[in-house]
Amino acid sequence: MSFIPAEIIKKKRRGLVNSPEEIEFFVKSFAKNELPDYQMAAWAMAVFFQGMSTDEIAALTKTMKESGRVLDFSYLNKPRIDKHSTGGVGDKTTLILGPIAAAAGVTVPMIAGRGLGHTGGTLDKLEAIPGFQLPPNAEVFKENIERHGFALMGQTEDICPADKKLYALRDVTGTVESLPLICGSIMSKKLAEGLTGLVLDVKFGSGAFMKTLDDSRQLAKLLKETGEKNGVKVHALLTNMNQPLGSFVGNALEVHECVEILSGKQHLVNNVDLFEPCRELSLQLAGHMIYLANKSESIEGGYKLAKELLENGHGLKAFEKLCEYQGNARLNDLELDKNPLTVESPSSGYITSWQTEQIGLAALELGAGRKKATDSIEYSAGFEFLVQTQQKIEKGQPLFKIYGKKREVFNEVAQQVLQAMTISETPLDSTLPLIAETLI
Amino acid sequence: MSFIPAEIIKKKRRGLVNSPEEIEFFVKSFAKNELPDYQMAAWAMAVFFQGMSTDEIAALTKTMKESGRVLDFSYLNKPRIDKHSTGGVGDKTTLILGPIAAAAGVTVPMIAGRGLGHTGGTLDKLEAIPGFQLPPNAEVFKENIERHGFALMGQTEDICPADKKLYALRDVTGTVESLPLICGSIMSKKLAEGLTGLVLDVKFGSGAFMKTLDDSRQLAKLLKETGEKNGVKVHALLTNMNQPLGSFVGNALEVHECVEILSGKQHLVNNVDLFEPCRELSLQLAGHMIYLANKSESIEGGYKLAKELLENGHGLKAFEKLCEYQGNARLNDLELDKNPLTVESPSSGYITSWQTEQIGLAALELGAGRKKATDSIEYSAGFEFLVQTQQKIEKGQPLFKIYGKKREVFNEVAQQVLQAMTISETPLDSTLPLIAETLI
Repeated sequence: MSFIPAEIIKKKRRGLVNSPEEIEFFVKSFAKNELPDYQMAAWAMAVFFQGMSTDEIAALTKTMKESGRVLDFSYLNKPRIDKHSTGGVGDKTTLILGPIAAAAGVTVPMIAGRGLGHTGGTLDKLEAIPGFQLPPNAEVFKENIERHGFALMGQTEDICPADKKLYALRDVTGTVESLPLICGSIMSKKLAEGLTGLVLDVKFGSGAFMKTLDDSRQLAKLLKETGEKNGVKVHALLTNMNQPLGSFVGNALEVHECVEILSGKQHLVNNVDLFEPCRELSLQLAGHMIYLANKSESIEGGYKLAKELLENGHGLKAFEKLCEYQGNARLNDLELDKNPLTVESPSSGYITSWQTEQIGLAALELGAGRKKATDSIEYSAGFEFLVQTQQKIEKGQPLFKIYGKKREVFNEVAQQVLQAMTISETPLDSTLPLIAETLI
Repeated sequence: MSFIPAEIIKKKRRGLVNSPEEIEFFVKSFAKNELPDYQMAAWAMAVFFQGMSTDEIAALTKTMKESGRVLDFSYLNKPRIDKHSTGGVGDKTTLILGPIAAAAGVTVPMIAGRGLGHTGGTLDKLEAIPGFQLPPNAEVFKENIERHGFALMGQTEDICPADKKLYALRDVTGTVESLPLICGSIMSKKLAEGLTGLVLDVKFGSGAFMKTLDDSRQLAKLLKETGEKNGVKVHALLTNMNQPLGSFVGNALEVHECVEILSGKQHLVNNVDLFEPCRELSLQLAGHMIYLANKSESIEGGYKLAKELLENGHGLKAFEKLCEYQGNARLNDLELDKNPLTVESPSSGYITSWQTEQIGLAALELGAGRKKATDSIEYSAGFEFLVQTQQKIEKGQPLFKIYGKKREVFNEVAQQVLQAMTISETPLDSTLPLIAETLI
């Protein structure tokens, strides 16, 4: 069967459905440099306007996945479960739920990314641990999975090359913001991990890619259907990113928070445990992972087991073990700034809203993230937030601390963060919960 | 001022207006091969969905015009007027109105095209005259205009190269059917002729690119505003292409019809003058050209003068003169098939509709046009229609004749044409007139 690329584009332009065969032909030819970039660019723009059916997205995802190496863990005869977050500020749950799920006996093959822009990347956080190493190739990664059930690797060139090529093209043709294409990009990489189940943390709010709960639900549904059409069980949690998650933002600081949480500690300030949101979300996500791996009979049972494994220290042990076989990384040598700048509240009132993305961007000014892909990272840089939304505060009360080496920008960054926090005379009538919805 | 191409694309994608400077940068860079095709393809698709303002279309048109050579006739100190048709079947008015306008003293610099698909091209018709030659370059064309006031030339590589490049890209990216881009393509080439006025024949109906009167009005308005924003006076006639124009379709046959009309002849069959629609439309269009050239005080005065110049034979003389200085072409040697096949009506009734595009495609089967750009043309091939819409006919009455050399396809083509004509028991309640609207 032969296809005419311009006709495939026109079908999409008219709002018709491209067949799985058409999508496979189109994307495969593109990956093999047989289809010109200009035809893919026109098609991607038509997709932006006309959308895609879930069958089309599933076909796109499958073709992108199969454009490169697909890890095969089926010989293990065990469920393989990962978690994916759409990204936020202070979002560090991977470092808690990964070890906990591993401690529960779940096989967790994680291919993680680096940060760009206002959201952090899991690999950057791990590399804040002195000595931490990524597997040099997929073979070592697979060995780690076989021996320990849990390992992390970076993206490699041979996984989803079609997605890499398409993403680079979308970036320069104004077609990044297309839900079906976003969905295909996320899911093709996750499915290449050879998973049987996936827990999605789809964030909404001022620090998330999706600003509203409705938008996050729409993306979550697409992601879930796409995974399921490709044979993977998917649960999705719609979670609140209207403030940074937990107390710390910044790479070494976030590892510190995770180790503290895994050690069973609290971070009590004015009777508020600032670790609570991050701990709770991590345990909920871990509970779903445990359930999807058939290690519990219910989601609630999974949550309960996760909590036990946190409280009895098995989660921490699994994290220490990960550090051991990924470079003998020295958790005790985390570089933490001993002399942070404390910033006080300029007024009394209630914290009613955060421009969370602005806080992520302020962290970039400290060197905690990358403005462009080639930037290097200052691992000790970041923030410690001492208050939460709806909390009553007094003028002069410490709001947050600034950590890091670029002390010359601390005052400017302090102003940026203060401007990103709204203090009102009265609290909000209502706020959305940390976990607003769960799609199972 | 520097521009980021992806931001220009995103603005258009969001439905915002690109500034003239942005459009100039984008299109100029594309023409110079500095902007990748994939960015132009994405932008063109965004334009398909979001449209363009008339200011944007004017800027696009200007930039495409200025991407190549623009003929300058301003030193003549005379108005220069052309006519452009959006294309139809049997549409041969150029060969009548051009000579008549020239006879009225109008300067008429015409850059004409060849046919592709179901519509014919003016150059193909002229080249059916043995010996007819096009000016080898723009210099000779300009000399002809200076000496005779009227000449025809083909598209050259150095006129509107940006339009050529963009059209080729649109053709393979499913973005041909965009009114603003169609408008820019048409008007950039016309404006490169160095005109002061332009008469548009925007066709609607079964043989036209625009199937409805409303669509043709929309295109006509865009074309008119685009011309006027670029300093050219534009009149537009919305004309009926629900049947072939006049009696003959096919290159030598259409030249024959024009010479007959310019000779003051009629083509009476059953008391109907089959030349009437083509003669009337040609005179109306010529009237507007004469008026735009200030050779009459009103459009009606222009029409009256055009009619006089037809009746007194000055139009025919101007056509003979054109043939003389464009290759000493021998009008008397037109190759006409002396033994056409006459096809009779299979039933009695009224001619109520024509699938005119199908008739154009049937002419292709005879070799009267090109399926692809490299096809050669059989100049003697074509049709003579002996009836008009709403006419009462009897079973066995001659409906049309088939001319040409490919006699082996005559029977098949006869069936195609019969199928394209609807004969009903009762006439239509109403039909649209030949000239449905005039925009001045």
